[in-house]
Amino acid sequence: MVYSTSIGLKTKGFTDIQNITPEVRQAVVDSGIREGIVCVANPGSTAGITTIEFESGALADLSQALDRIAPQDGRYEHNATWGDGNGFAHLRSALVGASRAFPVKNGAPVLGTWQQVILLDFDNRSRKRVLTVVVVGE
Amino acid sequence: MVYSTSIGLKTKGFTDIQNITPEVRQAVVDSGIREGIVCVANPGSTAGITTIEFESGALADLSQALDRIAPQDGRYEHNATWGDGNGFAHLRSALVGASRAFPVKNGAPVLGTWQQVILLDFDNRSRKRVLTVVVVGE
Amino acid sequence: MVYSTSIGLKTKGFTDIQNITPEVRQAVVDSGIREGIVCVANPGSTAGITTIEFESGALADLSQALDRIAPQDGRYEHNATWGDGNGFAHLRSALVGASRAFPVKNGAPVLGTWQQVILLDFDNRSRKRVLTVVVVGE
Repeated sequence: MVYSTSIGLKTKGFTDIQNITPEVRQAVVDSGIREGIVCVANPGSTAGITTIEFESGALADLSQALDRIAPQDGRYEHNATWGDGNGFAHLRSALVGASRAFPVKNGAPVLGTWQQVILLDFDNRSRKRVLTVVVVGE
Repeated sequence: MVYSTSIGLKTKGFTDIQNITPEVRQAVVDSGIREGIVCVANPGSTAGITTIEFESGALADLSQALDRIAPQDGRYEHNATWGDGNGFAHLRSALVGASRAFPVKNGAPVLGTWQQVILLDFDNRSRKRVLTVVVVGE
Repeated sequence: MVYSTSIGLKTKGFTDIQNITPEVRQAVVDSGIREGIVCVANPGSTAGITTIEFESGALADLSQALDRIAPQDGRYEHNATWGDGNGFAHLRSALVGASRAFPVKNGAPVLGTWQQVILLDFDNRSRKRVLTVVVVGE
């Protein structure tokens, strides 16, 4: 069995971090799949998907770490080529990854109690994003 | 076809790195699935899953790199909020990722000869972990 | 339904970045699968798989960032043990990840217009690589 759906959301960019766990959980419920794999992706090269405890302190720590790894005001060859100033966003997306798969068990994605699936929008402007969620299993 | 199982283990925390390849290989064998995808996850936000050559030098290099990226004695807002002192562990988990999928071919996960699947427990104490392994395919 | 194939390529090593999107797209087309999950992996511990806008500036930025995170001329315990000098490659592979899964929709991997799937060969010599692509779905 396969089920797919999408998650639409607006972001503010600049490492705007949004909790998409309720939507991912709902997709698994709607799929009717009890055991399998769910894969979540943002089509695009300036955002990332990972998990974290969705708590303001941990989110700030992640954002600050990415500022160190790929500073917003760094010198990027992408910017020199395109002049769109979001080289840091491309770099962060490549390092964090734009998709992530999770096991599904008992009709739910396998996540810890405080662990949430997040979209990080690294772009340097607000964006409308449409994520894809696919569930495969039975 | 879908098969799921779990891997229980005790860790010492503080980037304790454990080789879970035998258990992942066994899960694929037990599934009877010859071709498909296997997804491994630790439910929780203070551990990570990736692959490496399981050799003490490479493990030390990875541990030291994570100490630079997210130092244990760094200043974390998560710690300021919760006082549990494991902000570095949350950050490392978000960056490394808490789940990973691999192709399955010829009844085995697709891995190089020296490439091993590892759990990294970043938490600041010993933990009992129960990982989930799901295999989908035929 | 399950379909698997492989992608053979030669690399120059030293973070040689190759665009494997056409091959991944073709694998999904050849599978006949319209909806599901595609998983791409390099079996081995000195390469990585992720996505990026395949533009020379963004590629240079990623390469330079990895040089900072895991410098080629850094001091690695792996090198001390084995003398093969590719400790930086093992570290980069563990951090970037050697496999990645993407949703499949409408008979194609879910990717942005400018987003490409890449192999990064971090090893310190030219290599022949044989990647595995598995598609699961219907």
